Amino acid sequence: MSQQNTPPDGAAEPRRRRRRDPEGNRDLILQAARAAFAERGYTRATVRDIAERAGVTHGLVMRQFGSKEQLFLAAVPGTRDVDRVVDGDPQTLPERVAAAYVDRMEHSFRTDPLVAVLRSAASNEHTAVGLYRAMLDRTAGSYKQVITGEDADVRVDLLAAVLIGVTFCRYIVGVGPVARMSPQHLQAHLTRLVRSALFD
Amino acid sequence: MSQQNTPPDGAAEPRRRRRRDPEGNRDLILQAARAAFAERGYTRATVRDIAERAGVTHGLVMRQFGSKEQLFLAAVPGTRDVDRVVDGDPQTLPERVAAAYVDRMEHSFRTDPLVAVLRSAASNEHTAVGLYRAMLDRTAGSYKQVITGEDADVRVDLLAAVLIGVTFCRYIVGVGPVARMSPQHLQAHLTRLVRSALFD
Repeated sequence: MSQQNTPPDGAAEPRRRRRRDPEGNRDLILQAARAAFAERGYTRATVRDIAERAGVTHGLVMRQFGSKEQLFLAAVPGTRDVDRVVDGDPQTLPERVAAAYVDRMEHSFRTDPLVAVLRSAASNEHTAVGLYRAMLDRTAGSYKQVITGEDADVRVDLLAAVLIGVTFCRYIVGVGPVARMSPQHLQAHLTRLVRSALFD
Repeated sequence: MSQQNTPPDGAAEPRRRRRRDPEGNRDLILQAARAAFAERGYTRATVRDIAERAGVTHGLVMRQFGSKEQLFLAAVPGTRDVDRVVDGDPQTLPERVAAAYVDRMEHSFRTDPLVAVLRSAASNEHTAVGLYRAMLDRTAGSYKQVITGEDADVRVDLLAAVLIGVTFCRYIVGVGPVARMSPQHLQAHLTRLVRSALFD
């Protein structure tokens, strides 16, 4: 190798490091994206801001994800997470849904893409409404493997409504009794509401 | 009376008409306010825009209501509406709550202040969060005359969460099965969820 192909330490170093660790960059970008979307909502968060938080270039984010929308969808918890919750005895599905929701939100509501998209969709931002629907459809597909009957669609969407209402009260507005109660109490109340939405 | 005290038709006419009908103006302003708040959210709606929609001056709105916040609270359905729903057999309270909600929202969700304040509160606008809490506290006071027990606060707030979630899905985002179902179906499903929130 000639001297030309071995850049000196300094300016070129960050670039080489990024190239050597694309998976590490991907995780950094997704973390930064979750934080930016949750803080600013979908519409107001920018790819430039996300790149800056992740310490990479705008161009790298666009090469890895293609668009802000694709980046958002990559940052949303996947269908695999939902499938893991749905899988099991349908009788105890409400317990599993409530436990998974509380566990996820108590740990990461500040960076949860659901919160981000609710904030944006509430302001009637058209792209956010589309993303919101894309998220729900993906989730609904998993539930409909176990929720059957002619009103299955409605029941799965009512489950979404219950979770959205609780998310709004506890994690978005964050004032009042639902926001103040312990995670354990929340889980117990939510189990009952989820059962009512899906089965009663 | 001298000629001076009888202004000619024309420029001064609208002013005289307004002075003669303060109650009519009040209703016009409240209607305009509901429409403006619902369309633009609490924060983005302006008193100037509301005055223009109502065909009155900015000064008249401020003289009658004092501030945008006071105007908003005057535009919100009053505690009398809630008291009328709460009054009666507690066993059938869920039916009455669901029927009153569906009736109110199906007829006027485009100008409902709940929709306005949810939109604004979702964007984390501090004034809107305060108004949202003021609205809920006012409502909660009525419910707590009939919902008792140590977790009454939580149950009334869970009812709010359920109604907010359905409002979000059906009237704010307006896509999906909960948005598409008939008012009768909505009322039946909602009765069940309200019962679960308040009593089960």
